[in-house]
Amino acid sequence: MKKASILIIGNEILSGRTQDLNINYISKKLAELGISNQEARVICDDKEVIKKTALELNQNYDYVFSCGGIGATHDDITSESLAYAFDRPFEYHPKAMEILKTYYGERFNDARARMGMMPRDVELIDNPVSKAPGFIIENIFVMAGVPSIMQAMFETIIAKLVPGTPITYKTITCSVPEGNLALDLEKIAIEFSDLEIGSYPFYKKDGYGVSIVVRGSDLNRIELATQLVCQMIESHKDTFIIE
Amino acid sequence: MKKASILIIGNEILSGRTQDLNINYISKKLAELGISNQEARVICDDKEVIKKTALELNQNYDYVFSCGGIGATHDDITSESLAYAFDRPFEYHPKAMEILKTYYGERFNDARARMGMMPRDVELIDNPVSKAPGFIIENIFVMAGVPSIMQAMFETIIAKLVPGTPITYKTITCSVPEGNLALDLEKIAIEFSDLEIGSYPFYKKDGYGVSIVVRGSDLNRIELATQLVCQMIESHKDTFIIE
Repeated sequence: MKKASILIIGNEILSGRTQDLNINYISKKLAELGISNQEARVICDDKEVIKKTALELNQNYDYVFSCGGIGATHDDITSESLAYAFDRPFEYHPKAMEILKTYYGERFNDARARMGMMPRDVELIDNPVSKAPGFIIENIFVMAGVPSIMQAMFETIIAKLVPGTPITYKTITCSVPEGNLALDLEKIAIEFSDLEIGSYPFYKKDGYGVSIVVRGSDLNRIELATQLVCQMIESHKDTFIIE
Repeated sequence: MKKASILIIGNEILSGRTQDLNINYISKKLAELGISNQEARVICDDKEVIKKTALELNQNYDYVFSCGGIGATHDDITSESLAYAFDRPFEYHPKAMEILKTYYGERFNDARARMGMMPRDVELIDNPVSKAPGFIIENIFVMAGVPSIMQAMFETIIAKLVPGTPITYKTITCSVPEGNLALDLEKIAIEFSDLEIGSYPFYKKDGYGVSIVVRGSDLNRIELATQLVCQMIESHKDTFIIE
């Protein structure tokens, strides 16, 4: 099973101005693809920080999915920083420049040409939304930060990823307090140590309860564990919803 | 200015099941407090991973804000992992146990007692919502992952943080394509290098445009830079909204 990480580059996330949506989107996609998502990092627009983090993730994972910092403005420094990280010339990519010139026509200018500057010898990632391409350097997929563009780019790279058995899950939600179920649930978790069994309490205006998530690749085992969880909840005289 | 990082511990974020909201909440609070938020990490429920990451963030930052993994079930391993990381006994915390026993009364059980187990010699973080306390170990503030509980806990630790000058920002939004403004905007960014000037294009169903964010601690400088950004947009014959 391939191992992956997600790298979000952007001061706007760390300042709290923007709620990140890309980690969640990519995480879901990786689960569907059967690729193990092992960590996500949010870092600032700083050349040395980008270099250090990119090299570390490059070493530790099969795939790194990077979002943000490849636009047309002065604060977009991801491409330049990755050229620096991997010690490659930072230069105009001929095919990217062709795409940009064709798309922008008379509106092509020096700022837009910036989006055609990349580390040498990268493979382009198609951008069906706003044309300016992303790129692949080593095992790092460098995509835009705007969610709609990132999502469109991600679709185009799926064919390049080596999939595993999809990871799926069942969620069983009830209103028994988590602390009442914990000991019985641990027994199920020990019996099904090949699965990941998580317990997520919630506290909302209209009540509290817990969602038990049974997660893994083997549908039969998930089904069996789900049945045990449901029996456990029934033994606490509560009903449940399975999703 | 104090430097901080955020640590989200939880498989449910990396599986895509749960959209993280805690990074955004804490990031906003840190900006208001004038504390520099330098990175955020999302890691899985794994003892060695928690140890390695906690020690690294502990070394690199003044404050680490950790969310998740301190509940009553088998998958809550943050407290145990931090005891392991800092080589401290993992044991019942007398005051935490008192709080839990008082709150749960007859419903107190072994699972709930788990929430009273902590590394030795930690300071408790009050939990106004569901009582089970968080704790402070070294410079790490260990809080719950459920957003409403984390937020209530965060309020109680604010008095322990050394604030700086609050970081504020103005957002100027217009419908000029980012690539048309980029060169002029870069000149403003160079003139105001004491501020952070970001450019965030958006692509929505009802149109596209860009938000320019002028961010910093000096209100006068923010005001001046904002005026220049507005003049720049007017010179491109567009209107703008300042927020």
